Parts: sequence; C-alpha cells; structure tokens
Amino acid sequence: MRSTTARPANAHQARLLRLLRDLGPQSRVALGDQVELSRSKLAFEIDRLLETGLVVPDGLAASRGGRRSHNVRIAPSLRFLGVDIGATSVDVAVTNAELDILGHMAEPLDVRDGPVAVFEQVLALVGKLREATSTEHFDGAGIGVPGPVRFPEGTPVAPPIMPGWSGFPVREAMTQELGCPVLVDNDVNLMALGEQQAGVARSGRDFLCVKLGTGIGCGIVVGGEVHRGVTGSAGDIGHIQVEPDGPRCACGNTGCLEAYFGGNALVRDATAFARSGRSPELAGRLASAGRLTPEDVSAAAAAGDTAALGLIRWGGKRTGQVIAGLVSFFNPGLVVIAGGLTGLGHNLLASIRTQVYGQSLPLATGNLPIVLGELGQVAGVVGGARLISDHVFSPA
Amino acid sequence: MRSTTARPANAHQARLLRLLRDLGPQSRVALGDQVELSRSKLAFEIDRLLETGLVVPDGLAASRGGRRSHNVRIAPSLRFLGVDIGATSVDVAVTNAELDILGHMAEPLDVRDGPVAVFEQVLALVGKLREATSTEHFDGAGIGVPGPVRFPEGTPVAPPIMPGWSGFPVREAMTQELGCPVLVDNDVNLMALGEQQAGVARSGRDFLCVKLGTGIGCGIVVGGEVHRGVTGSAGDIGHIQVEPDGPRCACGNTGCLEAYFGGNALVRDATAFARSGRSPELAGRLASAGRLTPEDVSAAAAAGDTAALGLIRWGGKRTGQVIAGLVSFFNPGLVVIAGGLTGLGHNLLASIRTQVYGQSLPLATGNLPIVLGELGQVAGVVGGARLISDHVFSPA
Repeated sequence: MRSTTARPANAHQARLLRLLRDLGPQSRVALGDQVELSRSKLAFEIDRLLETGLVVPDGLAASRGGRRSHNVRIAPSLRFLGVDIGATSVDVAVTNAELDILGHMAEPLDVRDGPVAVFEQVLALVGKLREATSTEHFDGAGIGVPGPVRFPEGTPVAPPIMPGWSGFPVREAMTQELGCPVLVDNDVNLMALGEQQAGVARSGRDFLCVKLGTGIGCGIVVGGEVHRGVTGSAGDIGHIQVEPDGPRCACGNTGCLEAYFGGNALVRDATAFARSGRSPELAGRLASAGRLTPEDVSAAAAAGDTAALGLIRWGGKRTGQVIAGLVSFFNPGLVVIAGGLTGLGHNLLASIRTQVYGQSLPLATGNLPIVLGELGQVAGVVGGARLISDHVFSPA
Repeated sequence: MRSTTARPANAHQARLLRLLRDLGPQSRVALGDQVELSRSKLAFEIDRLLETGLVVPDGLAASRGGRRSHNVRIAPSLRFLGVDIGATSVDVAVTNAELDILGHMAEPLDVRDGPVAVFEQVLALVGKLREATSTEHFDGAGIGVPGPVRFPEGTPVAPPIMPGWSGFPVREAMTQELGCPVLVDNDVNLMALGEQQAGVARSGRDFLCVKLGTGIGCGIVVGGEVHRGVTGSAGDIGHIQVEPDGPRCACGNTGCLEAYFGGNALVRDATAFARSGRSPELAGRLASAGRLTPEDVSAAAAAGDTAALGLIRWGGKRTGQVIAGLVSFFNPGLVVIAGGLTGLGHNLLASIRTQVYGQSLPLATGNLPIVLGELGQVAGVVGGARLISDHVFSPA
C-alpha cells in the first residue's frame, strides 16, 4: 500500500489547505476573508483543490445576505499518523486532516532495545490501531524520538539515552514501511507543536514548552516555527548548569538541572528521604512497593508529607532558576510546562512561577503566562500529525 | 530637506537591491544566477529599477563567452546614517548603499542626560559628519540605544541605565529631524547586524553576538533575522543568574552575571585588589590616576600582574558559564564576542572558550566557533545602516 496523496500546486493552495485544517469547514466567502486573493483567483484555486480531491464540497453556507456561498472542507478521508516514542513508552494516534484524534493507543516500550526492536513493536501497535480505527492508509506520519534529531535527514544524532540509535535512518526506514511521507523530530518539539495546534499555546508564535519527565527538555517556537538549532540539539536545557559546584550529572558535568530535578533525580531523592526517615509516607510506600516513582512523591505530598512537598517545591525552584535565564535571554510570550512530572500538581507550577517572576526582569515577565500544557499524553502525537500535515500541505 | 527615495515596487526588486548592496556591481547575467526569475522577468524588473534611479548602469561586464552582459550597480548617490548611542559615548557614520563607511565620528556622551539633550548633541555631531563628508541628504537612518526598544514604534521601554527615556518617541522625533525613514533598535542587536553584514558573522543565519562592555547583552540572530522577543528585551543576559547566592546586583537580584563581570564589576574588583595590596600594578595605576578603568586591568595583566590576569580569567569563566547555558538552549552555529571589554585580549576569549567547550554537550559545541567580533567600534553604526537599508530596500 503506497499513498498517492495529491499535493498543493502552489503557496496559495497550501495556505487554503492549512486554513481548512485549522478552522474546519468554511464557506468560500469566509475563506476569502482570510487570504489576500482576488475573488476570481480564489475561486480558481479552490476549484483546482476540488479537482485534486484534497478539498470536497460541504453544502451551502448560512446566508450572510445576498447569494448563499458554498461550503468546502478538507477531504475527510485523509489520515495522519502521530508516533511519540518516549524513553519507556510509546503513543500512537491516527487523526483526520483537521487533526482530530480518531484513535489512540499506548504501551510500555524500552528505547534502549535499539531501533530495530523498537520499530517492530511500534509497527505492530500501529497495525492494531489501524485495525481498530478501520484506517486503510496514511497520508503522512510524524514521529518523535527522545533525543536530538538531524531534521532534514530524520536521523537521531548522538542521543544520550538511546544507545544504538545514532545515525539510524528513521525517516527513510519508516517511509518504506508506512508507504507515506514521514518526518522525524525530537519528542519535545512535537509536544510544543501539539500544544500550538490544539492546546494552551494555540496560535502562539513565540513560546517555550518545557517538558518535565524522566529528563528535562524545551521546545522553542520562534515566529510560529520550531527552532531546532544548527545540529538539532536546541532546547537541551536539562544540562544547563544551575550551580557550578552542584552534584555530578550523568553527562559528566556538575550541577546540571537534571542532576537536581527530573524523574530520575526525584526518585533518587525520594528514596533517600524514605531511607533516612525524613519522610514516613515515602518510607511506607518504598517498603510496600520495593521502589518509588514520581507518582509516589505526588501522593505523599497530597497526604500532607512535608518532606515530599519540599522535594516538589525545591525541584520547581531549580527548574524556575533555569527558565528565568531563558526568559531573560529569549523574551517569550508564553511558557508552557508539560510532561509526566506535571502530575506533581500545582505546587510545582507555583514554585516555578515564584522563581521566574522574582528572578527575571519585569519587562520580560510583565505579561508572561506560565501555564500547564493541556494535551497531556497526546501532545506529542498531535504534534506529529501537525508536523507532517504542514509538510503534506506544502507545494510539492 | 526631505528624502524622496524611491522604494522597490515588489519583492523581486527588493531582492535584487539587497543583492547589489551585498555583492557590489553585477552583470545582469550574474544577477540572473542568483534569483529564480525568467530572463524576460529579470530584464523587466532591472529596467524598472533603472527607471526609479535606485540602480544605475555600470558599463559592460567581462565576457563569459557570447554577447557581453551589461553591469548594473546600486545608485552611488544613496546615503545611510548609522547612529550608535552607548552609555557614555556616541558613534555616527555615513555609508553608501553598499554600506561602505564614507565617514565616522565619535565623542563622549552621557545617556543619563535624557533624550532631549542627547539628541541635540547627536544632531550636532551628525551635522559635522555631513559637512566633513559633503553629504546632502540621508536616504535612511538606523539608530541604536543601550536598552530595550519596542521595535515597531521605535521607543525605548523601561531602559535601566537610561533615566528619562522610557516611552520617548525616538523614531518619530528623528524621522522629523532627519527627514528620512528611521528605525531604532537595541545597540547589541545593531552590533550583531553589523558583524553579520560586514564582519565575522558575514552571512551567518543562526548566531549569538555577546557584547561585553559596561554591561553585558546578547544579540540573537535566528534564520538570518534578529530575534527581539515579545517586548523587545530578548538578549538581556546580564541578569541571568550565575550563582543563586552570589553578590547583589544593581537590578535588585543576587548573583547576576553583571554582578560578577562587565566594565562596572571589573573596575570595582580591580579597585579592591589595588587597595588590598593584592595587585601592585593596579595599586600604582590607582595612585597615579585616582581611578581605574578596564584598560588599566588589561595593561596590568600585560605587564605580568597575576591578580589582574586572574580578574580577566575569572570574568571569562563567569561569562562562559552563562554562554554555555545559551548554547545548550539555542544550539547556535557561531558565537561572536564583541564590545569594549574584548580589549582585555586573548586571555578573556580563551577563558570563555574553555568554559563553554567544557560545559555544553559535545553535540552543541562540536562545530561551534567562538570568535572575536571584527568591526570594533563601528559594528553598531554598520548595523544601523544595514537595518535601515533592509527597510528602504523592501516593497513600500
């Protein structure tokens, strides 16, 4: 099965397709209000899109006075696949061309098994998803991996937590397997794109999306586009130094943010608190389960355990110190906090906010919302669908 | 005297004008190699530019075989003004349309005198410059000020070291006074544009330009364009925290980079070293001059004074710590170190490099030149001319 999706013939058609993706069905008149095209040129380009099948008629629009305008919508048969490979799990979802999720599946996965085993598992899951949603084909797929990616080629580059993946031609291999256009990106960039498409950063043009999970990373959106940096490693904020003489980090340096916070550091500190008797609540959970997770810290804090609460607040403060520096440097319009650790709740967010608002200069923070992401576990797959739809809805 | 400079009629003409600005006189054939235009369309647009007077004929080109092509060049009568207002000095320069400097003047100035007094002085200096270079008119002016600027309006916003300037309509006032298009920007952004136009970052698309002067700031270029942030304060890295419990900064926080380094901190530390007897060389200079400057630290280090050398190395290390974080976050292709403190010489640069290469991850530093700016004192005025020429060479 090989996709033969038509592509827009020019930039006007590409713009119209993205508008229909983002706004849903529109009358020709309403579309005309959004683009600077003469009436005849607009009609010509829409007719061309109707001929390709990328756009279909959708009945008559409500009257705005005068002759009623015809509605058009993007072809409802188009299907995009989003794949979000994390360190320990994978999410897959299929969307329509308006990027509504039609089906979503997730399962545990160990990225350290290497690309061959991982993609075998991912393709099997995609097969189940396709069956459950009666999806016959994909018109494009966007794939996220938890490490830096050389974007044009779609290959991971020296990803620290992905042994065996460096240089693996993910884009090429998956294009073969799926028979449709594929793009590969860092998972945090996809999360930022997802929140921009359908979440709290909807239509945001200059914002940061900080992912707090096992590790810590940051998606950077500049002028509406993801900034990936010259080698695809932009946003690698987990290894920004918080204190020069801080604890040693797995990367070999000292005092990195990830040496203080992130899922791994939190479990390490919580376990130490449980063993030292500083946290009776965590000690009880460690005794019964044999190991602790970030969820245990969250539950202990909710149960009033002050040591667990202190861990969350302290982690938020350290994270806030780094974000404050980024705010001074980058002057974003919005900071989104997302990822698994946001399950730690409002104390984490409050602590980050206190640090950023207190440490950055007022001009940069005067009108700077710091908010939680809205899409949770599906942010990455929505971002993947958005990424590949931008590509498919570009002139060939 | 009011400028009536023609403007390009469309994006093709704008592109041709910028090419002629950056490449100098070109044959029609060579221009055709640079743009994707049909031969007839190219001829048409060049003829239109010749009619406006923005472009003039420049004789016959050397033969490439076949019929010889006609050279064209940008009108040699065009004049741009660059103004770089610093905390304690001002530079003004006039350039032609290829941004060659035709005349440059500088004098001391105190930005704290407020906008009215400062512009009286600046306009008097511009008058002298105009006389010395026989400049009859300006086709545009780019003006830099040492603080954040709301770029579209061209007004400084809450600039910490510029009392009385907040909200002053610099762009509007200077457009009136000079009778030509004016743009106003932060001085560090102009420095970055200058190095991109004619210096070490020539044609760079993703780089940082760190200015080490009385204070410390950073120009950020993303995809070839200056990133100013949502409120014009991007690049304000002097107040990124180096150590949470560091010395108090003038901004009210603790441990900011400027509390450790920059012209003010350096003079403070050098004076303390002189008084405590740790630096005989600095003590002698303080006794004879009554006060110390960064140049004294530089001279003392050159004379073998280890305390002075230590100040430079320590400042470079602190600066490098902050730059390392920015490199992890932004993944630039080049870091330019510029500003008055680069007079401290190679020890400063070496110390910054050691810190960045040691602290950022290899993927971000594997191919990252950290180099001194090339334009010295004229970087800002060249950047100002570049900024306004981009504007004048845009469709009206």
